[in-house]
Amino acid sequence: MRVGLDVGGTKTDAVAVDDDGRLLGRVRLATERGSGGVVRTVVAAVDLLTAEAGVRRAAISTVGIGMPGQVRPGTARVVHAVNLGVEELDLAAALEPVLHVPVGVENDVKAAALGAHALHGPGGSMAYLNLGTGIAAAIVADGVLWRGGRGTAGEVGHISVDPAGPLCRCGQRGCIEAFAGGGALAERWGRSGALPVRDVFDAADGGDPRALLLRASLARGVAAAIRVLVLTADADAVVLGGGITALGERLRTDVAAELTRSAAASPFMRSLRLDERVRLLPAGSPAAAFGAALIGAAHDSEEVLARG
Amino acid sequence: MRVGLDVGGTKTDAVAVDDDGRLLGRVRLATERGSGGVVRTVVAAVDLLTAEAGVRRAAISTVGIGMPGQVRPGTARVVHAVNLGVEELDLAAALEPVLHVPVGVENDVKAAALGAHALHGPGGSMAYLNLGTGIAAAIVADGVLWRGGRGTAGEVGHISVDPAGPLCRCGQRGCIEAFAGGGALAERWGRSGALPVRDVFDAADGGDPRALLLRASLARGVAAAIRVLVLTADADAVVLGGGITALGERLRTDVAAELTRSAAASPFMRSLRLDERVRLLPAGSPAAAFGAALIGAAHDSEEVLARG
Repeated sequence: MRVGLDVGGTKTDAVAVDDDGRLLGRVRLATERGSGGVVRTVVAAVDLLTAEAGVRRAAISTVGIGMPGQVRPGTARVVHAVNLGVEELDLAAALEPVLHVPVGVENDVKAAALGAHALHGPGGSMAYLNLGTGIAAAIVADGVLWRGGRGTAGEVGHISVDPAGPLCRCGQRGCIEAFAGGGALAERWGRSGALPVRDVFDAADGGDPRALLLRASLARGVAAAIRVLVLTADADAVVLGGGITALGERLRTDVAAELTRSAAASPFMRSLRLDERVRLLPAGSPAAAFGAALIGAAHDSEEVLARG
Repeated sequence: MRVGLDVGGTKTDAVAVDDDGRLLGRVRLATERGSGGVVRTVVAAVDLLTAEAGVRRAAISTVGIGMPGQVRPGTARVVHAVNLGVEELDLAAALEPVLHVPVGVENDVKAAALGAHALHGPGGSMAYLNLGTGIAAAIVADGVLWRGGRGTAGEVGHISVDPAGPLCRCGQRGCIEAFAGGGALAERWGRSGALPVRDVFDAADGGDPRALLLRASLARGVAAAIRVLVLTADADAVVLGGGITALGERLRTDVAAELTRSAAASPFMRSLRLDERVRLLPAGSPAAAFGAALIGAAHDSEEVLARG
């Protein structure tokens, strides 16, 4: 039995998967902040999963963890997981003495991309575009994650697509994230609320002109990210995930319309049929935790190979 | 002995390489246009190479060919090689009965990327950015070409980076190619001349205001392409090749200055040290033909594997 966890800023999603990739169980629990809190959360999730499956910890062969922040390539060391209050944490060093199984770690967007490809992916290549507070993507081709030189492939959020666009928190103007990031939209909207992007959509439905502009800005940024992913990485499909995709079809139709509109003058862009490549990660999909389980398993095979 | 050819619109560059990747010989000859012309050019180049190396055709184990235009994945079929007057051509079907060796074909930019990586590449991942009439790139990670779903990964030329930018021949505004493509620059410059981009640089050196704008436009487009390649594909290095790079250091310093200028307000972009990742393909490098030889060899191994 393989365990995969998606450790998010507020919630942790955990799944147990058998060797054939079948889902055996799933639990969700609140994430404790800080390095100690994250470790306690992982152990608690593992115990809940084993209880749910009616097995002992010894039945677990690997644990894989998806974490926000940067993961040093080839290690289980996470740095700058700001949302979790973690500056630096070696999850293998912290967890392997407790769990007694190999622990693999990957950036959460990359884990979600692998899981989305395995659970919902078409054949061929796929980009996973995560629409949350920030914007990031990951690319899976032939079932393999494209990592790039420093493990940061897919960081499309800070590509500027308009020198006269909104100022981004990164300092540039017109970044994709400045148009479409949940954090940037909430800041530009300026009204408090638990779900600011949903508020924007609702206000736009009611005809609020500023909300209409922000809603168009979101579609424009997401469409730009999709163009970059298809033209640079030749992704056959772009799967949208992350908090903002809770908007569902309202978001997807906006984005598809913007892709169609922006391609209207270009036979070349029309030939790419970008609107047909976009799909939403199904609501409630365990993609990120499932992908983390795959990463844990892959990590284990590498270990075995490395040990000869 | 492996032969690799870069079949360009006016010239064909051909190399002979031994099994350890050492260059044994190199010839250049004019390209004949049309399907029959391309086939005759390849055969003539092979004969010149064997004569130069003092060996018979039988000493050749594989032939690899880099061609402009699209190559259907997994085949030797080239379509839309407009500059060569070729609408569709199966080079294996045309050449294998004559040369009696396996013939592999790849898009010329992808072949150049492989060759640049083998000859001049640093470790890690590399993007090759071809600056010619149009703009296209290819990405090599761990020695392997990233192809993407339909074999078109790296087509960054038609990513729009400014909705108020110049109109592109593709129909969009502000495409990277509209800023930096040799064809677009020549059209905007509007004066006749064999080397329009060099004319622009010379006129800019003389203070011509329109030339200064076009020179800045070139740097801006190339810098945008580099940002896209580093952020999306996490390329450790970006190697610039293609006709425009005959401008040498004048081009490289312009591009590096634009990368520094555009990152000035963004600690995140500064941390990527984009200016330090840019290098020029050395003048006269046989990268494209050399990469084609590697492709021919890889094609041969696949054949062997496929035949069991």
